[in-house]
Amino acid sequence: MKTSILPVSEPANVHAATAQPLLAVGSVAFDTIRTPHGVAERVLGGAATYFALAARFFTPVRIVAVVGEDFLPSHENLLASRGIDLAGLQRRPGKSFFWAGEYESNPDRRHTHATELNVFADFQPQIPRDYRDSRYLFLGNIDPALQCAVRRELPDAACIGGDTMNYWIASQPERVREFLRGLHLLMINDSEAVELTGEWNLPSAARAIQALGPAHVIIKRGAHGATLYSPGGCCAVPSFPLEQVLDPTGAGDSFAGGVMGFLAGHNRRDEAGLRQALAYGSVMGSFTCERFGVERLLELTREQIEARYRQFLAITQFHPVP
Amino acid sequence: MKTSILPVSEPANVHAATAQPLLAVGSVAFDTIRTPHGVAERVLGGAATYFALAARFFTPVRIVAVVGEDFLPSHENLLASRGIDLAGLQRRPGKSFFWAGEYESNPDRRHTHATELNVFADFQPQIPRDYRDSRYLFLGNIDPALQCAVRRELPDAACIGGDTMNYWIASQPERVREFLRGLHLLMINDSEAVELTGEWNLPSAARAIQALGPAHVIIKRGAHGATLYSPGGCCAVPSFPLEQVLDPTGAGDSFAGGVMGFLAGHNRRDEAGLRQALAYGSVMGSFTCERFGVERLLELTREQIEARYRQFLAITQFHPVP
Repeated sequence: MKTSILPVSEPANVHAATAQPLLAVGSVAFDTIRTPHGVAERVLGGAATYFALAARFFTPVRIVAVVGEDFLPSHENLLASRGIDLAGLQRRPGKSFFWAGEYESNPDRRHTHATELNVFADFQPQIPRDYRDSRYLFLGNIDPALQCAVRRELPDAACIGGDTMNYWIASQPERVREFLRGLHLLMINDSEAVELTGEWNLPSAARAIQALGPAHVIIKRGAHGATLYSPGGCCAVPSFPLEQVLDPTGAGDSFAGGVMGFLAGHNRRDEAGLRQALAYGSVMGSFTCERFGVERLLELTREQIEARYRQFLAITQFHPVP
Repeated sequence: MKTSILPVSEPANVHAATAQPLLAVGSVAFDTIRTPHGVAERVLGGAATYFALAARFFTPVRIVAVVGEDFLPSHENLLASRGIDLAGLQRRPGKSFFWAGEYESNPDRRHTHATELNVFADFQPQIPRDYRDSRYLFLGNIDPALQCAVRRELPDAACIGGDTMNYWIASQPERVREFLRGLHLLMINDSEAVELTGEWNLPSAARAIQALGPAHVIIKRGAHGATLYSPGGCCAVPSFPLEQVLDPTGAGDSFAGGVMGFLAGHNRRDEAGLRQALAYGSVMGSFTCERFGVERLLELTREQIEARYRQFLAITQFHPVP
């Protein structure tokens, strides 16, 4: 199967009057993805891409990332036509970050066949002057030293979310701790939460992470759901049940885009806002799994998002409504 | 660590006026359990024990099971003092079913060290005449031929729940299918649902099981929660977050006891009743994990159950209450 990602003419995003600009720093990449349902060759991917394509439904999104010469005008148009601000996208000679991987029938089992950093190896995020008023910031999974540098450049950001991964936790534990000290919200996979804290028990792992800095921690459990830990308590949601998971690539990044997008779009940082953001994150992650790569996000509408949010509410309701 | 399970004087169970008797067929056993938190040697266990000790908070419970000479008057008193009807408990020469196992720090990883069927190997359920009016029936995880035989003896049961396991699915697939045809509600682990249907996707596996008989299927996902699939849709709940899981043995059976107990106690079989039962099942399973063996169930109160149900409601609520 060859996926075709064509630029689509798209109505302008309609955001709430409260919407604040959201800046995302991370990777834009090309992926070759094999699942039991087919293969997608060198399709546009990367954490910042999924994040931005999910968040843009809720708020204006700006990205800081680096791409190579294989990033064509058609790719640029695909993002720009969806209202994503690309002033912070650096072009460098060489190839973009490339990842190739394969999922088993059990989509929790993923095998990486290739990770070629290419231009991403020397990525130095540069924040355009126009981006410095970004009130919401997401520090995607990159070198924690770079995450810390970006964070210092936006000292007035009202809400800083972030992600990291096992590679950085193992190789740069002190830098990861510095990164955590500056965060309001960490979104992390369950296995990485365990690795970061040495705690198998996820509520205990979340409390240990909170003690390192972020007041709020969301532990993502893939198809098993996600839990938000806040100073006052926690909120747990299942994943939205899908009868067919075509390709789970980018689901976690789309989840993060939904969460940060909702917060920025409604200018919320409170517990109730975070809980609703958690649900919108789950909804956005579920859409991504329905097609290969970013395909589903590209053709999604705000109405479909709202309809699925209402469905999610209905399927998680166990107590009789009075 | 040696667990001490002493009979405790206990106030009589207070059930709703709607409460219907619930008959459970299954195993009563002794378990030696090792977890990173300690060891419990030859403590009272078995699926029917956990089931009954959870269900008895909601409705009168009767059990049909078999025990050996190591089942002492103190064990009998422990169950009888909690209002569990033991007229269907057969005593046989020899030893009771014995299981020994160990959990890793990740409680999903369980290793079985010993499974000695003993008197359970020749178990022939006999339904006392007084039990034949049981409107609610739970066919615990035993030989599916025996499950079918019991089911035939209670043709008027209004609601029949059941469980099975990989051993029977592999060795007696036809009998398991016959068993499924007679069920209203199957409660099954995720891995067993996959094995039974060949479907990795759990919503698809649930639909495939529904096509075999039971209108309702609950897929249990251990620490990841549980989902109820009904003809009209589904309801997903996370597990109740626990900061310490001392021993997960029996959590799934306590879950089933909470589900069937709630249904029988309120004489419900409708979708809304099943959803609420799903939440009570999760609550009961969570209590069991807090101590070794049945210890936590023995000292539990109905007030604690209601308090945790309200907590569960609070932590699963993501949409602002108007």
